[in-house]
Amino acid sequence: MADVYKILVEYDGSGFAGFQEQDKRTKKPTVAGALSDAIFEFSGERVQVFSAGRTDAGVHALAMPVHFPLERKTTAREIMGALNFYLAKAGGKCSVLKAAKAKPGFHARFSCKGREYMYRILNRPARAALLDGKAWQVWPKLNIKAMDEAARLLVGNHDFSSFRGGGCQAKSPIKTLDSISVKKSGGLIVVRIKAKSFLYHQVRNIVGTLKQVGEGKLKPSDMKKILRAKSRASAGPTAPAAGLYFVKATY
Amino acid sequence: MADVYKILVEYDGSGFAGFQEQDKRTKKPTVAGALSDAIFEFSGERVQVFSAGRTDAGVHALAMPVHFPLERKTTAREIMGALNFYLAKAGGKCSVLKAAKAKPGFHARFSCKGREYMYRILNRPARAALLDGKAWQVWPKLNIKAMDEAARLLVGNHDFSSFRGGGCQAKSPIKTLDSISVKKSGGLIVVRIKAKSFLYHQVRNIVGTLKQVGEGKLKPSDMKKILRAKSRASAGPTAPAAGLYFVKATY
Repeated sequence: MADVYKILVEYDGSGFAGFQEQDKRTKKPTVAGALSDAIFEFSGERVQVFSAGRTDAGVHALAMPVHFPLERKTTAREIMGALNFYLAKAGGKCSVLKAAKAKPGFHARFSCKGREYMYRILNRPARAALLDGKAWQVWPKLNIKAMDEAARLLVGNHDFSSFRGGGCQAKSPIKTLDSISVKKSGGLIVVRIKAKSFLYHQVRNIVGTLKQVGEGKLKPSDMKKILRAKSRASAGPTAPAAGLYFVKATY
Repeated sequence: MADVYKILVEYDGSGFAGFQEQDKRTKKPTVAGALSDAIFEFSGERVQVFSAGRTDAGVHALAMPVHFPLERKTTAREIMGALNFYLAKAGGKCSVLKAAKAKPGFHARFSCKGREYMYRILNRPARAALLDGKAWQVWPKLNIKAMDEAARLLVGNHDFSSFRGGGCQAKSPIKTLDSISVKKSGGLIVVRIKAKSFLYHQVRNIVGTLKQVGEGKLKPSDMKKILRAKSRASAGPTAPAAGLYFVKATY
């Protein structure tokens, strides 16, 4: 019988067409494909990998939990070494931080009890050179305090239809946002957000709306109206993928 | 008569063969070349640019002062906008953070009174995916306290021959190190170092030696012996370019 392993994966989303295949026209590899290829090189087994979050093209991960079955008898230590060897050979935009044998019944996606994302904004007139593809460069000076005040109005159980992206496969638009904050950190504006799960594009749509609050185009209290409107058109545009990081999952 | 402008430049060193041309065999552009091309696109003038530091291939800059003459009558604001437009078109690995008209006699290199570098070490077994080319990934767990203790023994006026790279064009190996520290910062080990000027590869040779202290291969007190030896062979190897950042210059 196959053993199940769980690994923690860091990846640079700018090298990938998302965690899973989203658009067959693009020639960029997916994170799932890169992992599956590395597992195959190591074991000769072609397996399906499952992750806590299926991030979009361009979205990064600091520590994404992933699980997969393996017939071959091996150790977590050997898996980590072998996968990092083959992932480095394949370009190095993906790296395994930890590996362990999973408990029976573990599922990276369905067992997940909480997800945390971070969004990084580089608030300055000059383009990002060092953080190219790793942050959203926003020219106008943003009011961080107003953004934070606006963000906190979203905490709790709400119908998030106004922040739900087209093509979302969730059955219900009702989600519970556990926490959100907007803070200055190391020259960047960082939005941190936690929930059990999110709607499609929910974080990027929230950040795109918070940016309008930061610019003074919206008042913090407008967030309440936007929630009540239950209409995507009432909120701001979707923030770019490059600023978004999957931070961690809890089980 | 030409006006002289000074600009502050951020760049991702992994896109460049160094600030200036070092090896005619490589096809990678230089930062100086990218800036000179952008100035030419904007003004039609082919000028020489001068920087506070002539960083190696792969070394980054957070804020490198650069100056150049320009016949065309313009404004600092227009220069910043135009250069960023053409630099973005040329790949975006270089960005102008500030521009200003320089005072008479200003020279980015010769007027510089202090230079600060930062070196970032990612201390973990797994390869850097998100910080690929932006930090030195070191597997063995490093003793940061020992590294910091060793580093502080270098502060002051010394003959730094043991940390002087081959091909160094400085007249004397004697330099004054104003400050150096080794600290944990945001999941990384960060070495910060300040001096009026540095020998060729001095920072990377110091960091390569501090890494050996961190691994326990050298004792902190060995730094004194290495300084006294005045021989490159007595110190550790050169740390990779990818971890090094020119932080700022003072005038």
